[in-house]
Amino acid sequence: MIKNNLKEEAIKLHKEYSGKIEIVSKIDVTTEEQLSLVYTPGVADVCKAIVENPEQVDVLTSRGHMVAIVTDGTAVLGLGDIGPKAALPVMEGKALLFKKFANVDAFPLCLDTKNVDEIVGIIKALSPSFGGVNLEDISAPRCFEIEERLKKELDIPVFHDDQHGTAIVVLAALINAVKVVDKQHRSIKIVINGAGAAGIAIAKLLMQAGFQDITLVSLEGVVSKGESWMNSAQKEMAEVTNLKRIRGTLADAIHGADVFIGVSGPGAMKPEHIQSMAKDPIVFAMANPIPEIYPEEALAAGAAVVGTGRSDYPNQVNNLLAFPGIFRGTLDAGAKDITTEMKLAAAYAIAEAVSEKELKADYVIPSALDERVAKMVAKAVSVATIQQNKSKSSLSVS
Amino acid sequence: MIKNNLKEEAIKLHKEYSGKIEIVSKIDVTTEEQLSLVYTPGVADVCKAIVENPEQVDVLTSRGHMVAIVTDGTAVLGLGDIGPKAALPVMEGKALLFKKFANVDAFPLCLDTKNVDEIVGIIKALSPSFGGVNLEDISAPRCFEIEERLKKELDIPVFHDDQHGTAIVVLAALINAVKVVDKQHRSIKIVINGAGAAGIAIAKLLMQAGFQDITLVSLEGVVSKGESWMNSAQKEMAEVTNLKRIRGTLADAIHGADVFIGVSGPGAMKPEHIQSMAKDPIVFAMANPIPEIYPEEALAAGAAVVGTGRSDYPNQVNNLLAFPGIFRGTLDAGAKDITTEMKLAAAYAIAEAVSEKELKADYVIPSALDERVAKMVAKAVSVATIQQNKSKSSLSVS
Repeated sequence: MIKNNLKEEAIKLHKEYSGKIEIVSKIDVTTEEQLSLVYTPGVADVCKAIVENPEQVDVLTSRGHMVAIVTDGTAVLGLGDIGPKAALPVMEGKALLFKKFANVDAFPLCLDTKNVDEIVGIIKALSPSFGGVNLEDISAPRCFEIEERLKKELDIPVFHDDQHGTAIVVLAALINAVKVVDKQHRSIKIVINGAGAAGIAIAKLLMQAGFQDITLVSLEGVVSKGESWMNSAQKEMAEVTNLKRIRGTLADAIHGADVFIGVSGPGAMKPEHIQSMAKDPIVFAMANPIPEIYPEEALAAGAAVVGTGRSDYPNQVNNLLAFPGIFRGTLDAGAKDITTEMKLAAAYAIAEAVSEKELKADYVIPSALDERVAKMVAKAVSVATIQQNKSKSSLSVS
Repeated sequence: MIKNNLKEEAIKLHKEYSGKIEIVSKIDVTTEEQLSLVYTPGVADVCKAIVENPEQVDVLTSRGHMVAIVTDGTAVLGLGDIGPKAALPVMEGKALLFKKFANVDAFPLCLDTKNVDEIVGIIKALSPSFGGVNLEDISAPRCFEIEERLKKELDIPVFHDDQHGTAIVVLAALINAVKVVDKQHRSIKIVINGAGAAGIAIAKLLMQAGFQDITLVSLEGVVSKGESWMNSAQKEMAEVTNLKRIRGTLADAIHGADVFIGVSGPGAMKPEHIQSMAKDPIVFAMANPIPEIYPEEALAAGAAVVGTGRSDYPNQVNNLLAFPGIFRGTLDAGAKDITTEMKLAAAYAIAEAVSEKELKADYVIPSALDERVAKMVAKAVSVATIQQNKSKSSLSVS
């Protein structure tokens, strides 16, 4: 269980260190000669080299390995719209994990505006300093528009972790869970509870991975063609999911399902829901810190594989398995975008970090602290980038 | 002399290290428990503490010691408008020096816009992440408006180093130089060649330090009331400088002057100018890398004290003596602005780093690499902050 004095300890630790990150120099400066190389007058020649060839900025400065972690503080953890200042401890934590697990330098930028045009404009204006953008904890539906516009308008990779990081790790867990219950066909019935940014991104990536029967459920009910309460993103999903046109609530959708994926709220899943699922149900209850259903209850109700977002239960579905390696691989390959192919490659790499021999119901996903994973993900993402570039160039030749 | 292969070495060094800075964690994360403190779920309590008391952000995150180094790349070194990407090596150098000399964390932000409203808007939107703003290499007159607006609209210190850093170090050098030539009265005649951002800031600070007879000279001629070519900043200066209403060129202004301060261009000062100055002339020829006049020539023409911007001659007038300590002192004292009192305190602290015993014509200013200086400046700035706060609160009581 999580410690009772976690609050006091976390605050004490943050106070003791005055935050978690610092900016350090990679080169020492103790002599006039060193100063003349890193600063004036020698640095002027480095500037001129970039004027002559702007792409050199990624080689001669930190830009090539520097990622901006950008938030407006509107959807922070389960806390909601707490504002940009209160979001900073989370973004610093993310920066720390980027460095620790993938040697990616990442800097937290918490923006004091919720205006989509302003956020897009600010990130574009800042792009001379950064080789990539990790969007974080920005509420839906603004996060969709911000990501889409930046992907179009910037030539550096842009990644909304709450959408794609979550989707990648869920897919990885699912790839292994279906092996455990021996349901490796792509026609299994999947229900995703939560039809916000994360739920929709999970649905899209699972479809891109070949899964065909997916149904989204929101607080308002099952996402289904014709429902009046749906927002534009949900309407779009209603066209390609819920093929049997189920209407109603989670209870209606979950009946006979093989997989439950929860990105909703505490207690949203009941034992009777699990009892109504198909044989050997897979349950990922990822609401944090209080899951849709606790593992003990889910297992008692008949679940065959259970995962949560928590570190104190087996099968923790944690974005930390994805984002450091994704950016490391993307930056290493000099990719200008993070494509579906790269995301799928990342998911398979995470899944493969659990060997066939180790794989079992309570070990379908590696530990969040498993340092091998980021390296495996980075390599897979790099290789996928190179392959897609090759197939693009062979297409353009033919 | 500066090495011949400086260019090759500087580029090689920057390439080898891929830039000069990195973002590192102050706390290691190897166990689940550590992860739960720096990231979810423990970090949520740190966020909540900031929601409850927003000022805690400076204690619980890096914000309290994090400075943004902001440029638009329009006036970089002597290179001019080379753009934001090419400016990055200089800004990284600055970040490195902030850390090395004053343990201030500073992050370079190079903006892809020259629009004043946009620059002000972006910096304001970024302020939840930063405890201070160092404006850098932004061309005049936009730099004046940007700084002025930010100082009004933000409650964190804003400092345009090209103006105030330069002014502080020049004042420090002058305080000591007048001792060497025994002209400690404030009525000495001072000519500043260069009437841009740096020249005007120097003139203002010297006046605030009590010097009364200052004349600015621009490429167009002597800044004098009624001249048609002056911009608004120069017009303002014409009201309070050049009391004898000298018109013409540098040759006219320099006649009989005690001090020459050059923030102009290579070779702007001739030996005959020095010969026309008062007895024991003080010459600070700070154009970089090629000064207004080389020290050998200036001394041969009769200069008593000579300084330049170069590290390979005595008396290097280098902003590095000011900016790290200024921000350290400002952040330590929790100052919300950098006032005239704080700037004057910094200049006197730099001057005092050269003891009465050490003081001589070729040592009026400490070495740029003298690590004592930032500490002395920080302390002086901190004390000045506390004193001005005291006198403000006693004023508001009376």
